[in-house]
Amino acid sequence: MGLVGAMNERFLKACRREAVDCTPVWFMRQAGRYMPEYQAIRAKHSILEVCKTPELAAQVTLQPIERFSLDAAIIFADLLLPLEPMGLRFDFEEGEGPVIHNPIRDRAAVERLRVVDGGELDYVADAIRQARRALAGRVPLIGFAGAPFTLASYAIEGGGSRHYIETKQFMYREPEAWHRLLDKLARVVTGYLRHQIQAGAQAVQVFDSWVGCLSPDDYAEYVLPHVRVIFDGLKHEGVPLIHFGTGTATLLRLMREAGGDVIGVDWRVHLDEAWEMIGHDAAIQGNLDPVVLFAPLHEIERRVEEILKRAAGRPGHIFNLGHGILPNTPVETVAATVDLVHKLSQR
Amino acid sequence: MGLVGAMNERFLKACRREAVDCTPVWFMRQAGRYMPEYQAIRAKHSILEVCKTPELAAQVTLQPIERFSLDAAIIFADLLLPLEPMGLRFDFEEGEGPVIHNPIRDRAAVERLRVVDGGELDYVADAIRQARRALAGRVPLIGFAGAPFTLASYAIEGGGSRHYIETKQFMYREPEAWHRLLDKLARVVTGYLRHQIQAGAQAVQVFDSWVGCLSPDDYAEYVLPHVRVIFDGLKHEGVPLIHFGTGTATLLRLMREAGGDVIGVDWRVHLDEAWEMIGHDAAIQGNLDPVVLFAPLHEIERRVEEILKRAAGRPGHIFNLGHGILPNTPVETVAATVDLVHKLSQR
Repeated sequence: MGLVGAMNERFLKACRREAVDCTPVWFMRQAGRYMPEYQAIRAKHSILEVCKTPELAAQVTLQPIERFSLDAAIIFADLLLPLEPMGLRFDFEEGEGPVIHNPIRDRAAVERLRVVDGGELDYVADAIRQARRALAGRVPLIGFAGAPFTLASYAIEGGGSRHYIETKQFMYREPEAWHRLLDKLARVVTGYLRHQIQAGAQAVQVFDSWVGCLSPDDYAEYVLPHVRVIFDGLKHEGVPLIHFGTGTATLLRLMREAGGDVIGVDWRVHLDEAWEMIGHDAAIQGNLDPVVLFAPLHEIERRVEEILKRAAGRPGHIFNLGHGILPNTPVETVAATVDLVHKLSQR
Repeated sequence: MGLVGAMNERFLKACRREAVDCTPVWFMRQAGRYMPEYQAIRAKHSILEVCKTPELAAQVTLQPIERFSLDAAIIFADLLLPLEPMGLRFDFEEGEGPVIHNPIRDRAAVERLRVVDGGELDYVADAIRQARRALAGRVPLIGFAGAPFTLASYAIEGGGSRHYIETKQFMYREPEAWHRLLDKLARVVTGYLRHQIQAGAQAVQVFDSWVGCLSPDDYAEYVLPHVRVIFDGLKHEGVPLIHFGTGTATLLRLMREAGGDVIGVDWRVHLDEAWEMIGHDAAIQGNLDPVVLFAPLHEIERRVEEILKRAAGRPGHIFNLGHGILPNTPVETVAATVDLVHKLSQR
């Protein structure tokens, strides 16, 4: 970091589809379990403690920035945080993921949910302010939130899911309550992200991680209108908006319709074909399979090259994984991959 | 069943893209946990006992045929059966799915695998013969096997998986051993399916259930050549060959290239768009979301109509779910859905 005070603008420029010297790169879950310095913090604090203690959240946010030549930081937080002030109680059970103790199973439970404004999650805004100060302009800071469908799936299933039976059943059997639930979630997420932007987030990403379990028709009918509320609500905030999901090859046009200056795609789709579907008037983020980071370096290089070839030097490509970094990913491979992206994409 | 001796030919005709009086329908896992008569058998016998006792396997195979107006039966068996004579030891643990006690983690383990011919799975052939007799020509009987990738994923992970980390890692790190493994699996599956056909299976389906976790490039390089061995090996056997996977929207052209007279697709892709990708010189099978069977009947009807509209009366559509019937699916809904497909598709 020789250039003190010179902000690395690659990521924000690529979001705006402006020319860059090389392709910017960041990784979802880049602050996480695969890093020993993260594990050292987590040995002393639960996930929720880290999220709710702005000093710790900011510290963890900076860890991958100190270690790798990444072009953006993303605030450390959890997708489920907004559900708590809305009235859901949850814990993270070791190795099991989140468990919600009072999942939503009927209309009455939807009615009881409180539509909170971002203020009730001020600890995230504080973490953003602290992380911005600690970053000191080195790279931009991304804020984020879960999308209504993905949040609803946790709220209804009571945790992660394989087939989303409870979620879809609720959607099919109680469409009015479903729309009421997604409307509440969309309003909360919009306020939450607006607070993050006001606190200093220089871009925000909406994670609809599990939306790929839906048919395109169900997405259009039960999900899209609520996602649009969020993107419409934030489009005058002056920061790039990223819209991400996995397994979305058949949803990309609809996701773009719902909103987002940047669409995040996973490895199941060729980047150029995805970009064609999204339209070249949007930027694209992706799309290396996170498991490729377990491969030997020459295999990683081959795949990074292929992705860059498909991006064809067109302005508006942000290199990322197609989903979050997995636990046990080798740290040295992450470092090497970041450098590879920069080296192979030199203009 | 007024027409004794008059075989219901709808399914086989549709596989050959011939005109039919209405769209044939069968469901993956149509013999399964959602049926009380199946549970009654399972209360007394393990899954493996049912598979290995031809009388029981045939009896379970017939259960959905006795109850619903389905147009095909599928032999009751498990995807993992061929792995046993190859040298892998496994059990089904209650609610946990299969657990393989000696998963494959290195080249030596691949070398030790025996390439058995179908003869070592004669109990499946016997079950087919008994089921054919019991069906007495009412509907055709489908045989099946897992595809090399899906079998390899169980063999390497040691059971089901979420991210297929071990499987892909093996593929990336030990490409030679990987190809040797898939070659062995492809040869075993080909022999196993040929035995099923000789025993009386009137069509066979290859289940590549988990292949949708791969990028198209990885599919083309690590999987396609081995799937082709199976379809090439069976194409002169004189029965329709069905090739199925989930999450395959971006793999459909490659799957068709690998082989299959019928391609099975899931609900994530519109049926007409999938058919366009596959080519209209193949038949198509699908594609109702299994969770829709938990919806009220008017919602199911709307979705069945939509699928039939997209099939547009073109010869060569077999109605099915996009994946197996889920436990707890209401039996009366299954009955109603089968009848709806027939009624709404009357020519």
